[in-house]
Amino acid sequence: MSSTTSAAERFAVCVVKAWTGAIASLDKQFASFTDDELQQEIAPGKNRVFYLLGHMTAVHDRMLPLLRLGERLHPELDQPFLTDADRTSPDQIAVDALRTAWVDVSTALNSAVVSLPAEEWLLRHDAVSEADFAKEPHRHRLSVLLSRTSHVGFHSGQLALVVKKK
Amino acid sequence: MSSTTSAAERFAVCVVKAWTGAIASLDKQFASFTDDELQQEIAPGKNRVFYLLGHMTAVHDRMLPLLRLGERLHPELDQPFLTDADRTSPDQIAVDALRTAWVDVSTALNSAVVSLPAEEWLLRHDAVSEADFAKEPHRHRLSVLLSRTSHVGFHSGQLALVVKKK
Repeated sequence: MSSTTSAAERFAVCVVKAWTGAIASLDKQFASFTDDELQQEIAPGKNRVFYLLGHMTAVHDRMLPLLRLGERLHPELDQPFLTDADRTSPDQIAVDALRTAWVDVSTALNSAVVSLPAEEWLLRHDAVSEADFAKEPHRHRLSVLLSRTSHVGFHSGQLALVVKKK
Repeated sequence: MSSTTSAAERFAVCVVKAWTGAIASLDKQFASFTDDELQQEIAPGKNRVFYLLGHMTAVHDRMLPLLRLGERLHPELDQPFLTDADRTSPDQIAVDALRTAWVDVSTALNSAVVSLPAEEWLLRHDAVSEADFAKEPHRHRLSVLLSRTSHVGFHSGQLALVVKKK
């Protein structure tokens, strides 16, 4: 590491690594389920793994505009995987298409996240106005990234409990 | 926030807030279980909530020396809650004592964490030597804090699945 790397840059590298590491672990978990296994519940009476795959894809897709890093790729996932509970209506999206959406969103988001200069993490996220941000300077992109990193961990812990049926 | 607050300080405030927020959520979860409910499994055939309470206490107790912020308070928790799997042997610690240990460790650790000056997060953690740290400067206290914050989220997600038996 260059001796001219600033403290802020070192912080940024570490929080970004925590994010990409969490995504890599979650991706590995999702990939470990066959299409049939995706239909299992994470625990009796709880969401299916399939729903969690859609949920994580939708939440992360929304991070692109929320972090002001780009346009969404899959707004159609909000209704079935954020607004509605699991199994509210028959699945509208095929497993393959959902897996592809997950990979595409992860790739686009990670690419933008790793490229952002350190100090730009401290600029406002899109859900706060310039005026409010002047009064509440902690409502920055970084707070979103850390919050979503915890969210990934939360659901990774649940996926780790799934006992695959043979 | 003062206009003289550095970028590194703003990063530190945010990662510390993510940690204390995660601990507060987990504490609320543990407190929501009665002593009897602590004996439930987080999912069929998995660890009891009681074990997770001990596990988190032991992991966080170890953070005090690992972050070079103080001495451990409860090294006796390692064997039953880190080395051994759940129910390897009869519980050696009473529920009340374990709850108190959890609170004491959380209080001591949070107090040290919120007081650490921003740039000191970028100093080495205790599991790396000065010589190795010179070559691998990412092995700092900050990396430990972020890793453990994810670990809290991982188990919080599992605790959220527990259906309390009436």
